[in-house]
Formats: sequence, structure tokens, C-alpha cells
Amino acid sequence: IVDGTALWTDILETARFGGTPKGGIRRLALTEEDRQVRAWFVAACTALGCTVSHDSMGNQFARRPGRDADLPPITMGSHLDTQPTGGKFDGIVGVLGGLAVLRALHASGFETRHPIELINWTNEEGARFAPAMLASGVFAGIFTEQEALDRTDRDGIRFGDALATIGYRGAAPCGQHPVAAYFELHIEQGPILEAEGKTIGIVTGVQGMRWYEVTLTGRDSHAGTTPMTMRADALLAAARIIEAVSTVALAHGPDAVGTVGLMENRPNSRNVVPGTVFFSIDLRHPDDTTVSAMETDLRARIEHIVAAAGIGLAMERVWDSPAVHFDPDCIASVRAATDSFGYPARDIVSGAGHDAAYLARVAPTTMIFVPCAGGLSHNEAESAEPADVAAGANVLLRAVLDADTR
Amino acid sequence: IVDGTALWTDILETARFGGTPKGGIRRLALTEEDRQVRAWFVAACTALGCTVSHDSMGNQFARRPGRDADLPPITMGSHLDTQPTGGKFDGIVGVLGGLAVLRALHASGFETRHPIELINWTNEEGARFAPAMLASGVFAGIFTEQEALDRTDRDGIRFGDALATIGYRGAAPCGQHPVAAYFELHIEQGPILEAEGKTIGIVTGVQGMRWYEVTLTGRDSHAGTTPMTMRADALLAAARIIEAVSTVALAHGPDAVGTVGLMENRPNSRNVVPGTVFFSIDLRHPDDTTVSAMETDLRARIEHIVAAAGIGLAMERVWDSPAVHFDPDCIASVRAATDSFGYPARDIVSGAGHDAAYLARVAPTTMIFVPCAGGLSHNEAESAEPADVAAGANVLLRAVLDADTR
Ligand SMILES: NC(=O)NCCC(=O)O
Ligand SMILES: NC(=O)NCCC(=O)O
Repeated sequence: IVDGTALWTDILETARFGGTPKGGIRRLALTEEDRQVRAWFVAACTALGCTVSHDSMGNQFARRPGRDADLPPITMGSHLDTQPTGGKFDGIVGVLGGLAVLRALHASGFETRHPIELINWTNEEGARFAPAMLASGVFAGIFTEQEALDRTDRDGIRFGDALATIGYRGAAPCGQHPVAAYFELHIEQGPILEAEGKTIGIVTGVQGMRWYEVTLTGRDSHAGTTPMTMRADALLAAARIIEAVSTVALAHGPDAVGTVGLMENRPNSRNVVPGTVFFSIDLRHPDDTTVSAMETDLRARIEHIVAAAGIGLAMERVWDSPAVHFDPDCIASVRAATDSFGYPARDIVSGAGHDAAYLARVAPTTMIFVPCAGGLSHNEAESAEPADVAAGANVLLRAVLDADTR
Repeated sequence: IVDGTALWTDILETARFGGTPKGGIRRLALTEEDRQVRAWFVAACTALGCTVSHDSMGNQFARRPGRDADLPPITMGSHLDTQPTGGKFDGIVGVLGGLAVLRALHASGFETRHPIELINWTNEEGARFAPAMLASGVFAGIFTEQEALDRTDRDGIRFGDALATIGYRGAAPCGQHPVAAYFELHIEQGPILEAEGKTIGIVTGVQGMRWYEVTLTGRDSHAGTTPMTMRADALLAAARIIEAVSTVALAHGPDAVGTVGLMENRPNSRNVVPGTVFFSIDLRHPDDTTVSAMETDLRARIEHIVAAAGIGLAMERVWDSPAVHFDPDCIASVRAATDSFGYPARDIVSGAGHDAAYLARVAPTTMIFVPCAGGLSHNEAESAEPADVAAGANVLLRAVLDADTR
């Protein structure tokens, strides 16, 4: 079993890279804080006898050799980037949990058949560069390397340039890297496990999700002299669309969610009727046909709103990540590992996207969830219990060893 | 009469300080662009034999001596700062029209009884530092100097520090400066004069206006895993309030306006349910009792919205500028000047706030309006006719001379 205390210490220690006064982390992808935690990762893995490399997307690979050098590695991983007001666990538990597995193998001198690899994926959150899971998406052939390098953040900085700036643009092409299996440990980020008193979520898949970008074009005008009836107020139209996103999600059953998370108002001055508004929409449901139905419903409402308000509309679907069903063998390994410890568990579908959703396209993949307090995530107050995190890492260890014997 | 060509040339020449590709101006108060146009103003006025000084708020005064050095000056003025996406005329026509008056007096060698002064007021727009008309407000004793110096922009930079940075924090206390009369030439910024084919608007007053700042506090949470019914979405509540501002304005007659112009969403990430939203509200009506009624109506709606959504509310009225009625003698001077030229004219109430609204508290004051294309203002496409601008400056000249004989 893993050293739960060392794992918890690692979580607290890395939390200083981008740590916030409220106890969260602000460590956006490819920033100086990201560079610092990457350097920490290299040092920690090297100390356990691993060779650490990174590819052209900056994904980091810490490799522990196995008995048979010709076999592709069994991999574990997640991400060390965070939301602008993120917590100490989202992604981090998966990487540091994998590190705890490597530490256990190192301490016992256990020799696996496959090489074992721990991966830190670049820009999982999608907070700085949209969409989420960008670099694991390149790894899985969903996006081309060039597409990813050319993504820009909201300040116009290119992904490729930011990657070079922190010194993590590797020579090895992303994805030319066979993988025997991929296991990702993660906090649930939702309320189910905690509510039901379960320690482990055996993750069977990931729900479908789509992202859209909307630009509304009205007319800048004077707030004091432009009669209400002569306005083309882009923010007022945006307000109606935000309401419509909520209405559509509520109309498609309890599993449907819809969110406007990012919004930019221009010129953003108190006495100017806003002429331009840019915002994102996020729609999700476990069933892809429902996601499509939500999109159709929402598009009709948006077109009605902008037509009635005399506002110009540009709407683009910028991301479509269909529902994912994980590999039965990998799920069986996680189930067996969970049972061997006797942890209370249940099957669960992930509401959040994860690098595992893209890895599932190119390798046998699954995930392990542990509870987080109140289901709260993407929040500085995100919290998890040390015992649960250690339990998740134990399951990760045994699932990896189980897959190694297959 | 004034030299209309020289006036138009000045408008085009100063438009390069902060000029935008779309033909507008971005010259926020106390920025480098503002410093540049201030230096131009000093040079231009000095060349006409004026002495130029500035006070502790950075207000600039170009003084042409009169016959009787003991008399307080007859003043003209407006502002050279602009909105983030402002036009070439708002404020600028008033300052450069005053310059045209000084040029006419200088060219003819005409000696007035009073000193004549042209004033460039600091931070009229309120776009960088709220509220609008901040420095003329200090001049008129509405705000204390310390209050104004401590205002911060949205990046947290202090007014006083920005003023010092551009080198315009003068030693002379703001407001210790008697004024015999104040005349402000301005574009109408609304559609009335153009629609009725009038060249001159004889401004009888300014409508009442109030600004509010609202902070909504919900809870950051994950867009994919947080059920719709478990959210505390500050942006969704803000959307409902934006709709309510519009509803309230429409409900209080055709002269009522209500605007949300500035909005900041946090953490502003595509897959985070927004936990905090900050925005401004601007309410106006020519009748102060109606402004009060709008506020009461809106507050009730806002409280209902946040209570239903489980969102925390902090709402503050940060500015209250009651309706203003200008000085009958000054209005008479403008009317006589207009009639002497035979310009088509009508009386009008200003929908926009102006430095004149604060000067009216401490000196006989009025304004002169000229039409602008489509009534469009606070827009880079803001436009006015050279002949109308020259006509306005002619009226300004004769009104000043008329007041000088009183
Ligand atoms: N795990 C996680 O929060 N990933 C971000 C991608 C998403 O929006 O679900
Ligand atoms: N003239 C002008 O646009 N002033 C800005 C103050 C306001 O009316 O909001």
C-alpha cells in the first residue's frame, strides 16, 4: 500500500506554487507557477529512480522501467494546472497519487512486467487555453499539434509561445507513444460519493460536453441620451441568453447542465450602452442525443432573442467531447482492487471532462474517484480527506499491478 | 466670428492623441494620451498669448487678461478625456471651440472687460475613475479633494497617483477660483437637433442621474458536476438584474433610461459557475422624483431576484447628480447670440452629464448644443458637421461677449 502521509505532504507542498490567501491555487497552464510545479515534479520523480521527459505539448512522462523493455507502459496521470480560483485536489490528486504509487514500488523494489509511467498532462482545465484536455487531445489524435500550438488565451498569447517561454516545448512528437493502459485517480468534483458514504467511485464513463463561443454585436451608445427604444444593447441580449441557457438545462432533465462561465463586455464603461459581448456556453449530459437536443433548443432561443433585439450574432461550437465508455478490463481491475481493500464503492459517470476521456480513444482506460467535501470543485475551498485520497492511491496501485499481470 | 477651418483642423490634429483604427479616440483620463493632449493644449493657448496653469485636480486654465484685472473671469470649457471607444467630438468641441473663441479675440485684438478663461476639466467621462465630472465636482465643492484623489480605477490605480504620474498635480487648490460665468459648448449626444433640423440647442438644464455599484456573491463551482438546482450562479442573477434595469426604465415613461455598462465576472472561466459578479447601474430621468421612483422599483426587484436565487447582494449608490436648471441670464446670452446669427434653434434638456452641471452650483452657467450624426455618442463613429461646430463656437463667442457686458 501507498504512504498516505507522504502523499498528503506532497499535496500541501505543491500547493504553494500559485497558492492563494483563501487556501486554493491559481496555477494556470504554462504560467510561471506551472513551470515551478513541473520542476518539482521532475525532481520528485527523478529521486524515485524515474527518467522524466516531455513531449512537444509539454506533457511530462516519468518512467520506471519494467522487466520487459519492449512492452508499452502502464500509465497513470492527471494534471497539475488549475482554474483561476481552483482547489488543491482537482488533477493534483491524480498526479501525486501516481507519484505515491511510484514511491511504493520504489520502496519495495517491486519489479513490474511493463514499464510504469506517470503523466502530467498540459492544460487540462481549459481555463487559460480552450478547450479543456487540449494536450491529451493531441496525444489521442483529436486535435493536431499545430491546432493546439496556435490556440490563444484571452490576452492573445499563443499556447506554443507560452510553452516555449516556460521551457517545456519538447522535441518528441506528442502521441507517438503506445500505452498499454491508463488509470486516472481524481476527486469526484460532485456530491454523490460523499452523500452515499462511499470511498471509491468506479468510473464507467464521462458524460458528453460541448463548448460554444458567442459574440453579440450591438451598438455602443450613450447611456444618458439614447432612448431605451433606440438601443442595440449587446449585454441585455447576453443576459437573456444566459437565462435561456439555464432554462434549456432545466428543461432536459436532472442530469442536464448548462453554464455561461466566461463573459467579456465591451467597451465596459458605466455610461456606455455595451456594443459587444463575448461569452462561452458549456452544455453537458451523459447521453449525446440529449446534448444535441439541448443545442437545437438553445440555438432556436438564441436566434429568437437576437432577432427581437436587433443584435448581430456569431455563434460557434468550439468543442465537442462525446460521451465516453471506459474499458471493461480496466474497470474490472479497479473493481477488484477496490474489493480487495473492502472500500465502500459504487459505479459512477463523470460529470467533468478528464484526460482519461481522450486517452480512452487510444488505450484501455478508466478512472478512480474519491469524494470531495460537499461536491465542491473549481473553488478555492475544494477539500478532500487524507484517508480517502490514500484509499484512492491504494486502488490505483493495485489496479496498475493487476493490469500489469494481464 | 470664429475661424471654422482652424477649429476643424484642431479637432483632427488632437484626434491623433489616442486615435483608433476605427476613427475614434481612446484617451482615458490621466493616461499618456491625456498627457499628450494636455501638452498640446498648453502650447496652443500659450501661442494665443494666454497664461496656462493647472490646479490640484489637474484642471487646466488658459487665461486671457481683460481690462479689469480684479473681475473674476468669464469661463468656457469642457473636457479632453474620452471613453474607451469614444469619438472625436464629445468634450473636445467644447475645449477647442473655446480655443477658437480665444483665437478670434487674439486675432482681432479685442479687449474684454473680464479676463476670459478656457478650462479643460479632468476625468469628465467617469470611464476610468467613477463618477463622471469628478474634477469639476471638486471645483464645485461636491466632492472633497481627498475623496477624488483616493478614487481608484478598475486596476486599483489611485486618481492622485495617476495625476502625479502624468505631471499634472498642481499646487493651486481646486475651487479657490471665483468664476463670473461658465459657458460649455458640446455636441448634443442625442438625436433631437438633427431630427428637427436645428443647428443650436439652447440648453436649459441637465437631467438627474444616479450610479450604483452591485456585487453579487454566489459560489464558484464546477460547470460539469454541479446540478442546476445546487448552484449559486452570480452571473445568472446578474442577467436577471440587467433585464430588470431595462424593465424599470421602460416602465417609467419615454424619458427614463437605465443601463448596465460595466460588468466583471469572476473567476471568468468557461467551466466554472461564476461565484462573483460586479456591475454598475446608471439610472436617469429629467425629473428627480422619477429617478427616486425608479430606484425604489429597481431595488425591490433586485432584492426579489437575489433572494430567490440564494445570492448575496451588496448594492451601493455611488453617485447622485440631481437635475440641474441653468442660469436664466446665461441662457438669455446664448439665445441672443443664436438669434443674432439667425441659426435655427430650440430649447433642450441634456441627457448627458457635463461639467456645466457642477459649475452651475457655484457660478452662472449654461450650455450650447450642436447636432451630432444620428445622435450617436460614446461610439468611435461619433460625428458632427464642421459648419455646425463652427456655428456653436460662434454662439459661444457672442454669448461670452454678451456676458462680459453685463
Ligand atoms: N476535471 C476537470 O475539472 N476538468 C476540466 C474539464 C471540464 O470542464 O470538465
Ligand atoms: N458628456 C458626457 O458624455 N459625459 C459623461 C457623463 C455622462 O453623462 O455619463
